[in-house]
Amino acid sequence: MLFGKVCIFGGRARYCVVKPLACLFTTSSNMAKSKFEYVRNFETDDTCLRNCYIVVRLDGRNFHKFTDQHKFAKPNDNRALGLMSRSARSVMEELEDIVIAYGQSDEFSFVFKRTSTWFKRRASKLMTHVASQFSSSYVFYWKEFFGEDQPLLYPPSFDGRVVLYPSNHNLKDYLSWRQADCHVNNLYNTVFWTLVQKGGLTTVQAEERLKGTLAADKNEILFSEFNINYNTEPAVLKKGTTLIWEKRDETVTKRMKLPSAEEKEVEVTRSRRRVHAHHCDVIGEQFWEEHPDILEDDNC
Amino acid sequence: MLFGKVCIFGGRARYCVVKPLACLFTTSSNMAKSKFEYVRNFETDDTCLRNCYIVVRLDGRNFHKFTDQHKFAKPNDNRALGLMSRSARSVMEELEDIVIAYGQSDEFSFVFKRTSTWFKRRASKLMTHVASQFSSSYVFYWKEFFGEDQPLLYPPSFDGRVVLYPSNHNLKDYLSWRQADCHVNNLYNTVFWTLVQKGGLTTVQAEERLKGTLAADKNEILFSEFNINYNTEPAVLKKGTTLIWEKRDETVTKRMKLPSAEEKEVEVTRSRRRVHAHHCDVIGEQFWEEHPDILEDDNC
Amino acid sequence: MLFGKVCIFGGRARYCVVKPLACLFTTSSNMAKSKFEYVRNFETDDTCLRNCYIVVRLDGRNFHKFTDQHKFAKPNDNRALGLMSRSARSVMEELEDIVIAYGQSDEFSFVFKRTSTWFKRRASKLMTHVASQFSSSYVFYWKEFFGEDQPLLYPPSFDGRVVLYPSNHNLKDYLSWRQADCHVNNLYNTVFWTLVQKGGLTTVQAEERLKGTLAADKNEILFSEFNINYNTEPAVLKKGTTLIWEKRDETVTKRMKLPSAEEKEVEVTRSRRRVHAHHCDVIGEQFWEEHPDILEDDNC
Amino acid sequence: MLFGKVCIFGGRARYCVVKPLACLFTTSSNMAKSKFEYVRNFETDDTCLRNCYIVVRLDGRNFHKFTDQHKFAKPNDNRALGLMSRSARSVMEELEDIVIAYGQSDEFSFVFKRTSTWFKRRASKLMTHVASQFSSSYVFYWKEFFGEDQPLLYPPSFDGRVVLYPSNHNLKDYLSWRQADCHVNNLYNTVFWTLVQKGGLTTVQAEERLKGTLAADKNEILFSEFNINYNTEPAVLKKGTTLIWEKRDETVTKRMKLPSAEEKEVEVTRSRRRVHAHHCDVIGEQFWEEHPDILEDDNC
Repeated sequence: MLFGKVCIFGGRARYCVVKPLACLFTTSSNMAKSKFEYVRNFETDDTCLRNCYIVVRLDGRNFHKFTDQHKFAKPNDNRALGLMSRSARSVMEELEDIVIAYGQSDEFSFVFKRTSTWFKRRASKLMTHVASQFSSSYVFYWKEFFGEDQPLLYPPSFDGRVVLYPSNHNLKDYLSWRQADCHVNNLYNTVFWTLVQKGGLTTVQAEERLKGTLAADKNEILFSEFNINYNTEPAVLKKGTTLIWEKRDETVTKRMKLPSAEEKEVEVTRSRRRVHAHHCDVIGEQFWEEHPDILEDDNC
Repeated sequence: MLFGKVCIFGGRARYCVVKPLACLFTTSSNMAKSKFEYVRNFETDDTCLRNCYIVVRLDGRNFHKFTDQHKFAKPNDNRALGLMSRSARSVMEELEDIVIAYGQSDEFSFVFKRTSTWFKRRASKLMTHVASQFSSSYVFYWKEFFGEDQPLLYPPSFDGRVVLYPSNHNLKDYLSWRQADCHVNNLYNTVFWTLVQKGGLTTVQAEERLKGTLAADKNEILFSEFNINYNTEPAVLKKGTTLIWEKRDETVTKRMKLPSAEEKEVEVTRSRRRVHAHHCDVIGEQFWEEHPDILEDDNC
Repeated sequence: MLFGKVCIFGGRARYCVVKPLACLFTTSSNMAKSKFEYVRNFETDDTCLRNCYIVVRLDGRNFHKFTDQHKFAKPNDNRALGLMSRSARSVMEELEDIVIAYGQSDEFSFVFKRTSTWFKRRASKLMTHVASQFSSSYVFYWKEFFGEDQPLLYPPSFDGRVVLYPSNHNLKDYLSWRQADCHVNNLYNTVFWTLVQKGGLTTVQAEERLKGTLAADKNEILFSEFNINYNTEPAVLKKGTTLIWEKRDETVTKRMKLPSAEEKEVEVTRSRRRVHAHHCDVIGEQFWEEHPDILEDDNC
Repeated sequence: MLFGKVCIFGGRARYCVVKPLACLFTTSSNMAKSKFEYVRNFETDDTCLRNCYIVVRLDGRNFHKFTDQHKFAKPNDNRALGLMSRSARSVMEELEDIVIAYGQSDEFSFVFKRTSTWFKRRASKLMTHVASQFSSSYVFYWKEFFGEDQPLLYPPSFDGRVVLYPSNHNLKDYLSWRQADCHVNNLYNTVFWTLVQKGGLTTVQAEERLKGTLAADKNEILFSEFNINYNTEPAVLKKGTTLIWEKRDETVTKRMKLPSAEEKEVEVTRSRRRVHAHHCDVIGEQFWEEHPDILEDDNC
């Protein structure tokens, strides 16, 4: 049977009064593809230097607007912080070799172990995968934290970057930097919103009031004017969230069949490695001494 | 009033029998932060070379498993293709300077114009933002395409990369490469699943049957054994999806108050720039001649 | 025969009372080497983006001091400019794929053709090879230009960099930038040293005199005060030196044996491709129109 | 006075029947330059990651041919090795922050201290400067080592690369790798040339003879056939050359004027920091224990 058929592969339309078999475009499609394949050579190698910690940090894009539109509580919204941690946990569980993650506000940092060969250490793959997994998780778990009252109005986004740290000292200083940032911002925001919400100041007045104040001054305002002791604020706000892998004993109840064919509930305890959250200081040595397995030795 | 307070900033717990003001950690928190700030210098500059097209390509991670678990139709699932396009549109609407996007299967490529200064052309920011916006959109719009029947079981992820193309010729060849890939894969998958679903072959038998066949052979199998003319298959499957910005007239009906205080419905037509989808050949010149504004001149 | 032998491979001295064959270090030296070979993986790929011109620019290091100590004539030393060109020619003759080079003062730029695959386009190899060949040539040919009067006192050095240009337009603008720089500097230096050498000003006074002057003012000083028309200054100083490959007929005289066994001198003309120097404007189109083969088409 | 003058700046020739002052090209030359200056933005930042050792390794280009044409002694030419070391010393004395250099055959590696900020840690500047200084020194000092008998026939060249090492362990392994390479090659070359020069084999026969032999076999050939104990070969050949900075007491004789107006020769001893050469093992710990100041602590 003969029929007319248009071959528009390659951009030139052509009538073939033949059966499909004879239509040239089909026989040459692999050839056509190979002709273009040279464009792969334009990809550049972005392998991360070996024996360095690979840090991927994500930051919320336009989160000022996002938090307004989704009516986040000020200065901190526990639902939002919970969702950030949940999403970060999802990243750690999906990507191999992340040994520690630290988050505060709308940012989260993920640290790959220095000897990781995940994705052949290709920076672009590592950071896009982290950004993607975190973002899809954020939407996926939204309802778990915000319930039905506050629907998600539009898909949020995060941008990321990769930074390498060659020594344990540098890596700890990176995490200390983020935690010091958490402290400075949270103290400011706590006083700012207390002045607005309890002190009746406008946001402009509150900003004016805090201009030039030191941390000590801010503590004093909280304490003497509002009877708030900043040091008793929740650790999750003052210290942020640190996620690490830990082996802990878990006890579960299982139904088991006995030889007598009876069923019985038994408690089974086993050690499981899971991601656990901490809200403690990571600037001092104590945390690192308590968790000596997070970092690998410098001398490797 | 005096009271005991623990300062655990810096890792050393210390009781201060004083009011908060005197607690040293607070006065020094900004100093502490600045001490760590040197770690910012470990960030490297990954600015994309000027006057080159910046392509960000995303690929689904473990989508073989994902499509199985979410019962995607074989060889193509129109809901899934629709969701991919919807997510890509969300990316184009959120990020400035994307002039064209091309997608097929579980991948999508986004092309930033060669003179773009978005994100100062920083590769990491560009690709993570694209990956993030795409992924959150994929989850956000899932229900719009899959309805209540097929819930999303877990957050999916995509990885990405950045490639630069210095000339219009190179960029077109890149898009041609992806479209040729779409063609080759779709033809294979169409025959493969027809052999399985209509021909009763196992997947192993179908694979065996297709080993070494040329495109012409595959066309012939479809045509002579199953009476399917591949060329009449939907263009979205054979050609993939090309998204571009286009100005088109749109007519909307508005209620207007007349001077007589009456209300009246009037039709208002105005030109609006929106993202539109095409399923046409981009390998030949026709598409580019019809849309001369997508690419900038090489001589710039 | 037995004898004592010290094996100090691996850092531990050890007496082996055996013949060499049995000394373990020797059998394991290849193994020892392979144990360390992992360090090669720390090298990073610095391949230059395809289809871009690769420019390597060299600049003299501490040439202010160098020119003083070697008593270079001010404002321009023709011997030094000649030596720079000679060294640049040596680079062009040794490295494949340099299509044009441009030099002025103590700098020289080398342009590799956009499709070059020399050294697999590895930036580090390209720039170090250029820097090395240029520097060794500079010392090697010194005497040819400075004679016996001015010996070279110490080995000079040049640093280099690589810059990529994606279009012909960008590349021409790069060369224009360097030539405009040549013009601006040379005009300034010409007036400055004329004021000092002929006008009797100190260098401080000359600097003061020229502060804030425009090019027109400088021309006027030269013309009205010293009767110098800047436009008649040598082109090599005003325009710098452009080196390109050109095929030209060359006639040489050869002694040939005639059938009659007589010898005779004959003139043989043949076309030879050599590096030739130009001191012309490269900012306008004329130069490029006269030498259409230097650049490859953008549309490749 | 009026005169005709050609302005050919910008490529368009134009007769100006005016005095130079009025010639437009001169007033606009700075403007012209600034118009092109955008091309600077095509330079990319290649700053080396902080807190890593920066190694620049140079390798002779086409040294097989070079050594033949300059009649280097086989398997090792002491003049050539001396010249390599002399040139490397010149590099160490000119560039700050090189803490150790290691060379063998026609290669030399230079190690910048991990905290160096020389050239702002820009890789291109570091490697081109090293390559340039080494190459100009090689030509400059040639005669000092080769005398008048063997003139330098043409300027040689070296190519280079940059590699980063994040830990002391990695850096030592890098140097060990190069020294193990030296050992393997020197043993091979020693036996090879002994077979040729003393054993009367052709180079092809010698190669054939050595195919598949282990180090122990090579030692045995030298020992049993030629009565050569490889272990007593000069250390410079077996271990290569390590250059480090060392403070040593130096005594010089100075003529001094005494109060009595008499002159007298006195010996003055002072400690001077100079580059010193070692030909010892650097694979074991001993060398590093004896020179604890070369490397900085990992924990920085």
